[in-house]
Amino acid sequence: MLLEGDKPREACGVLGIYAPGLDVARLAYFGLYALQHRGQESAGIAVGDGKRITCHKGMGLVSEVFTEEILRQLKGKVAIGHVRYSTTGESSVENAQPLVFHYRDGMISLGHNGNLTNYAELRKRLAAEGVVFQTTSDSELIVSILARSSQSDPVEGILRTMGEIKGAYSLVIMTENRLYGIRDPHGVRPLCLGRLDRGYVIASESAALDTIGAEMIRDVEPGEVVVIDESGITSLRCHYPSPRSLCVFEFVYFARPDSVIDGLNVQRARTALGRQLAREYPLNADLVIPVPDSGTSAALAYAAERGLPFCEGLMKNRYVGRTFIRPTQEMRDLGVRLKLNPIREVLAGKRVIMLDDSIVRGTTSRKIVQMIRDAGAREVHMLVSSPPILYPCYYGIDTSRRGELIAARHDLAEIRELIGADSLNYLSIDGLLAAMAPLSPESFCSACFSGRYPIDVSGIG
Amino acid sequence: MLLEGDKPREACGVLGIYAPGLDVARLAYFGLYALQHRGQESAGIAVGDGKRITCHKGMGLVSEVFTEEILRQLKGKVAIGHVRYSTTGESSVENAQPLVFHYRDGMISLGHNGNLTNYAELRKRLAAEGVVFQTTSDSELIVSILARSSQSDPVEGILRTMGEIKGAYSLVIMTENRLYGIRDPHGVRPLCLGRLDRGYVIASESAALDTIGAEMIRDVEPGEVVVIDESGITSLRCHYPSPRSLCVFEFVYFARPDSVIDGLNVQRARTALGRQLAREYPLNADLVIPVPDSGTSAALAYAAERGLPFCEGLMKNRYVGRTFIRPTQEMRDLGVRLKLNPIREVLAGKRVIMLDDSIVRGTTSRKIVQMIRDAGAREVHMLVSSPPILYPCYYGIDTSRRGELIAARHDLAEIRELIGADSLNYLSIDGLLAAMAPLSPESFCSACFSGRYPIDVSGIG
Amino acid sequence: MLLEGDKPREACGVLGIYAPGLDVARLAYFGLYALQHRGQESAGIAVGDGKRITCHKGMGLVSEVFTEEILRQLKGKVAIGHVRYSTTGESSVENAQPLVFHYRDGMISLGHNGNLTNYAELRKRLAAEGVVFQTTSDSELIVSILARSSQSDPVEGILRTMGEIKGAYSLVIMTENRLYGIRDPHGVRPLCLGRLDRGYVIASESAALDTIGAEMIRDVEPGEVVVIDESGITSLRCHYPSPRSLCVFEFVYFARPDSVIDGLNVQRARTALGRQLAREYPLNADLVIPVPDSGTSAALAYAAERGLPFCEGLMKNRYVGRTFIRPTQEMRDLGVRLKLNPIREVLAGKRVIMLDDSIVRGTTSRKIVQMIRDAGAREVHMLVSSPPILYPCYYGIDTSRRGELIAARHDLAEIRELIGADSLNYLSIDGLLAAMAPLSPESFCSACFSGRYPIDVSGIG
Amino acid sequence: MLLEGDKPREACGVLGIYAPGLDVARLAYFGLYALQHRGQESAGIAVGDGKRITCHKGMGLVSEVFTEEILRQLKGKVAIGHVRYSTTGESSVENAQPLVFHYRDGMISLGHNGNLTNYAELRKRLAAEGVVFQTTSDSELIVSILARSSQSDPVEGILRTMGEIKGAYSLVIMTENRLYGIRDPHGVRPLCLGRLDRGYVIASESAALDTIGAEMIRDVEPGEVVVIDESGITSLRCHYPSPRSLCVFEFVYFARPDSVIDGLNVQRARTALGRQLAREYPLNADLVIPVPDSGTSAALAYAAERGLPFCEGLMKNRYVGRTFIRPTQEMRDLGVRLKLNPIREVLAGKRVIMLDDSIVRGTTSRKIVQMIRDAGAREVHMLVSSPPILYPCYYGIDTSRRGELIAARHDLAEIRELIGADSLNYLSIDGLLAAMAPLSPESFCSACFSGRYPIDVSGIG
Repeated sequence: MLLEGDKPREACGVLGIYAPGLDVARLAYFGLYALQHRGQESAGIAVGDGKRITCHKGMGLVSEVFTEEILRQLKGKVAIGHVRYSTTGESSVENAQPLVFHYRDGMISLGHNGNLTNYAELRKRLAAEGVVFQTTSDSELIVSILARSSQSDPVEGILRTMGEIKGAYSLVIMTENRLYGIRDPHGVRPLCLGRLDRGYVIASESAALDTIGAEMIRDVEPGEVVVIDESGITSLRCHYPSPRSLCVFEFVYFARPDSVIDGLNVQRARTALGRQLAREYPLNADLVIPVPDSGTSAALAYAAERGLPFCEGLMKNRYVGRTFIRPTQEMRDLGVRLKLNPIREVLAGKRVIMLDDSIVRGTTSRKIVQMIRDAGAREVHMLVSSPPILYPCYYGIDTSRRGELIAARHDLAEIRELIGADSLNYLSIDGLLAAMAPLSPESFCSACFSGRYPIDVSGIG
Repeated sequence: MLLEGDKPREACGVLGIYAPGLDVARLAYFGLYALQHRGQESAGIAVGDGKRITCHKGMGLVSEVFTEEILRQLKGKVAIGHVRYSTTGESSVENAQPLVFHYRDGMISLGHNGNLTNYAELRKRLAAEGVVFQTTSDSELIVSILARSSQSDPVEGILRTMGEIKGAYSLVIMTENRLYGIRDPHGVRPLCLGRLDRGYVIASESAALDTIGAEMIRDVEPGEVVVIDESGITSLRCHYPSPRSLCVFEFVYFARPDSVIDGLNVQRARTALGRQLAREYPLNADLVIPVPDSGTSAALAYAAERGLPFCEGLMKNRYVGRTFIRPTQEMRDLGVRLKLNPIREVLAGKRVIMLDDSIVRGTTSRKIVQMIRDAGAREVHMLVSSPPILYPCYYGIDTSRRGELIAARHDLAEIRELIGADSLNYLSIDGLLAAMAPLSPESFCSACFSGRYPIDVSGIG
Repeated sequence: MLLEGDKPREACGVLGIYAPGLDVARLAYFGLYALQHRGQESAGIAVGDGKRITCHKGMGLVSEVFTEEILRQLKGKVAIGHVRYSTTGESSVENAQPLVFHYRDGMISLGHNGNLTNYAELRKRLAAEGVVFQTTSDSELIVSILARSSQSDPVEGILRTMGEIKGAYSLVIMTENRLYGIRDPHGVRPLCLGRLDRGYVIASESAALDTIGAEMIRDVEPGEVVVIDESGITSLRCHYPSPRSLCVFEFVYFARPDSVIDGLNVQRARTALGRQLAREYPLNADLVIPVPDSGTSAALAYAAERGLPFCEGLMKNRYVGRTFIRPTQEMRDLGVRLKLNPIREVLAGKRVIMLDDSIVRGTTSRKIVQMIRDAGAREVHMLVSSPPILYPCYYGIDTSRRGELIAARHDLAEIRELIGADSLNYLSIDGLLAAMAPLSPESFCSACFSGRYPIDVSGIG
Repeated sequence: MLLEGDKPREACGVLGIYAPGLDVARLAYFGLYALQHRGQESAGIAVGDGKRITCHKGMGLVSEVFTEEILRQLKGKVAIGHVRYSTTGESSVENAQPLVFHYRDGMISLGHNGNLTNYAELRKRLAAEGVVFQTTSDSELIVSILARSSQSDPVEGILRTMGEIKGAYSLVIMTENRLYGIRDPHGVRPLCLGRLDRGYVIASESAALDTIGAEMIRDVEPGEVVVIDESGITSLRCHYPSPRSLCVFEFVYFARPDSVIDGLNVQRARTALGRQLAREYPLNADLVIPVPDSGTSAALAYAAERGLPFCEGLMKNRYVGRTFIRPTQEMRDLGVRLKLNPIREVLAGKRVIMLDDSIVRGTTSRKIVQMIRDAGAREVHMLVSSPPILYPCYYGIDTSRRGELIAARHDLAEIRELIGADSLNYLSIDGLLAAMAPLSPESFCSACFSGRYPIDVSGIG
């Protein structure tokens, strides 16, 4: 997968660090680098020094938002960080996180990965009671509910809040001197816990732990509230047990290959997807090429399983970032193509199997197939290491609206025709879930493929 | 290869477009994207509209230097572009190219890839005659010589200039309405010529042609001057025939895999390097991993040739760019490592062959070997798809000073010891040059490996 | 008066425009220019287009915060604008106004000039009810109270809110399609109403009306709520009648000489202060000089009344703005002085009367007196066109803490000694208020001179 | 005078500091503040540390171009600074000064106030010899001539250069460890010399000396070369004696009131102009108002001499800077006027004398007269404290082209009609020069009034 415009987009990555004596803001900065793939639109870090919370956030990549001078001013013992894509189109700095608020007992800051499903109802109720909001985000809502649930025991307030909000949420919350890590009862989004020499880390993915030299302790469990402060780690469970519904797309595309989620390494899962694909569709061809970068693991596994040569047939331009000037139609008509360039030497005269992780709208796949043909390939067979995306995600991923999903509007033969491939095959849902072993098929949310939403979505506008 | 600090750095990429009626600045912008790997420190585009030359340049990536508004102001029919690394450490906007000057006949602009070897002598001579310079660069010198050689026939002036300057140079030069492409008599740096629907393109690499929809015509020949204006293309040869000495490192590491230089596709050459390595060192192990990204082609070929599994065992963070905040020593002591993360699942308990394209100072290799061991590998065998770098490059590449080259100070056993590998093997020079077939071994400069400098370097300070 | 560090600082200026069919953001931009003297720390404009409110704000001068492109994006029929000094020291963009919120009935935006005196009590009450805040400002509090007072009739909500908040406030409030102008029952801060060809304007000072070509209608009355929408102007009065207490310092120093407040032209008032000073202290000297710029009107009047020559003896550097690099102690020791330069030709050998509008901490006066002596003056007699500042302002002006007020800690003789003048005289309170004719002495707040606070300040921390 | 578009614009201000042991860059920074009125388009400082020259410059005000961090990096013992208006319209950073070059003997930097009259001829000659230029400025030309005149004795080279260049020039030139101050043989532009505790300063105006605590020694004499280095001050004279031709407009408008040029204080000169005007045109009226700020001194003197009341009748907005968004025609039609606001209270019903220092195109005067009438004035009589500008300046001031000078195209009656005043009178040339006493009338250039150019201008295109 490659062209952002045509791929599901992860909403966010979160990170929390409790480490008195260390430069927590700088650690958070480096940790966010490892989560940058989960959100490239805005970045932010909030720091608590026991007395107050200071926050810096802005639009852009972690490297664009922070400078040495800014990091130096963020002093404290506890920090949370956040990277974000906008799932709504409201791409402005007001929506950047962490959010920071003053409330009865002091200051509080929050970073959220996920999406609430009863947002509209909750918001209407609060607004009727005279609550005002800075944004239209569900994350701000969580803070207001938390402040109103506020008890003499703050953890009790969190557990009450978890009883009111529905949907997917992995949260890092911070007061001036305490860190909370919270994962929704279904465990839709990942969240894990690690140990530093002199502190603790909570992060969306274990790769962030590796990057800052933290050792993985374990995943935060669905429905768990982890509290970290000067007395160490405390763990509580909410009283709302729910079936585990980890997002399977984290393994298909979102998460980094070097992360381990709920015990399963992502690259291992992708390798299994490639192998499963070889079992379901044992094609013959002259070579197998991936759509870089996310199709590579599965393509390598497919080629090995089938005994076919694997080649890099498409060169990706690593410098095409978030803020470059896109080619106009006139430029595209002239043949300008920035992101991918086929290697004619590899492709000319060959029957090519091209493997990608998923198809959303299909526009990019069509361009790539054409590009491979233009480079001289005799045949182009497309394999997709996940099933057709038929339903939108309401749990924190931007899969485009249903009307834009090519598989929701066309059958397989039509899609093949539209993208111009000689053949097209998707992995089956059963095959997908089988490849997730040893995790059981029941422990996943695969609603985007199956339409079986594990959390009620009837309240969504 | 990966950590900039420990790799040879290409000095520059150049590009020229002559295309009345098209948006030449925008085409140059997109073309420079494809050359961004040749220089990430500064970028610039100059445009001629028949009456005057306008230029914009700045520090940073192409995407950072240009905005939509700037591109809109660069109107004309001829453009040249440039991306640059500083080879001298003088990393400032004064040194950014294209250079633009007023001279007797109007305005002139120049972009240079390469390095003059008689710079000191030429500069001393000119300064004694009262010439003043804005910079200490050899590129500015070329313009002064050209202006003084200026004849009624400008091409005659260029040929005279080529008689005075020695060294490596691929040049794009532009007046208000004409484009010149010039390659030094040895052809050290690449330069190629392509055709647009309504114009012509000259570029350091053919990938830039592909990116903007131009069709490759041919390479610019060593000693050739290509002149493009309203009468079409004219070609002249300088009267200084020299043995062809194409830089072999372009194939080992610098150039893009999808480029074709002097008839040879870069990825094909790298694949041949991997195969040759398998012949010279037929090791056994559990798996072969590349150091991403430049080691991948050779590692794939090595694994295929040896029948060993190929795996991605190191995850590279794509977001670690030019301008991020580097970890302090304290952070590194805490275990912060941003650029690479090993995948424990892949490496644990394995005998690993790790393949990289080259070693300069060795510091990065040592870190990577250690990282692989920490992830649980039982053995780490390092293979390098080029010979030891023993001599500095004086032709436009920054290979560090000789005293910093690990292979210039240590023998093979010592290097292996220093980087901590269980074994270490470099490709032979003969093997390297053999892998460049069908190009003949004599047609290359491999001075950095052999010390045999094809162009006199005695005048270098 | 001159050196910001040593002068009372106005907290804010506000502006509102209702003018369907006109470019309201641009009008607001130009109007804020005319209010820039009331706040130079941040600036902002919010615009409502009937459906939503868009806002842009930032740190710095109006000219620094807005660009042509930003103005173009602010489309609508109603706008409010704000310029701000921080009175608390929390100088960050979070505190910039206008504030914008979502609430039950849509969006709302507010700009505030003044200061609430029951802030602490209100905030404590709301926080206890679970309200969260983004800032510690009293302005945000007003919005929360308003949202909770929200009625079927929004004006009723405003009137109720005015019953809860105490202190000084001139407010502009905007919904997506309506503009409100509100002045507290005491009328501490100015607010006036003007007419455009096709709309209405509300502003802190009439100079803003002049600047954008609006015609003054009248002042907004203390306790009045002006509502402007498609049905025109409606006016309501709150049910909390209070004695009028217009801040006299607006005339002494803050407001522009070309503004008219509650019927009195500011320059006319300052001229009367100079004349009154001549009556109270009929000194003889060779010449009268003002401390530029705010002392000029009174100095001219004093000189004319006394028949003495008036001269500009101090040259002010107009380019010393908000964001220049201040001289270090070392530089000051070397004699670097940026803001004022005496004209030796004018001062040498003379007995000089120097007239300033006020003294806060006295440090600047001491420097100026010394500067005049160094330029050769034989005698320096200082006259101040207002009484000694003995008490802090709690109604929206930053007069420094009481401990820093030179007149609160020293008697007249001591102050004269400290500033090094040959004589020093302040205008009397009675003289000050008499000069405000035809406005009656009872209609002013002069608490900073007299300590008689017209609004209860016992709740202030 | 007020609206830049309608006033002569000074080209530049220069400054040089030699002071080992002091922070010369910071002193230059503060000194440039005092010269900011001489050029607001770009600013720059170059510093020499004995080994090399470092320079920072950029578009904008001194406060915009420099930051604390930049100043800290400019270390050395000798510095030159420059502020600039473009006289040619080429308003880009390439033209910002100081210019810095490498030449035979090392590095050299130059700042220039003035304009060469034989520029075209010199440039043609050099270009024919193969010299290339970065800019089209006459200042760059000076460096090339200097480098070619370069002798074993550098001062000899400077004197030779002064023999080749014609026109107006006050120069500061710096090598790595020496400072030169040079004033052209006619002394058209001012330049003065001052003493610091531990060093020396050269500056366009004495106000810059005052600002940084330097004591004025004397003016640099026409044709003088001042050399400052570790051996102290040396003075040489060029061998080209010429009649002294100091620009009289420096006293009329350009220079600061607190500066002393060639012995005459600028405010004293302006006061004399006002008095002279009273003698030539002893009008009666109700009050005298200045056009702020430059008309103030003369207006005060006129009013005193005539025994008429002086008032500030026009309020100038101090915040309308270089980079604000100008009102569109639509906005101007709506009545938006940013820079000046009349005070109705002062003007209504009055016969007003309005005094300005000069009229260039007349457009601003017309607007101001109308503004005063709109504020209710019964009569408006305009007095100008200088003669009609009939000829362009070729010596470093941008007076607009001749065709744009209102007085070059219209007689007095027509101008009065065009600006809409009830009467209009200009000071006579004889009156102007008489007011410059004790300086003799022969020592001035008044070519813009008289057309008698003291330096040959026949070579100007």
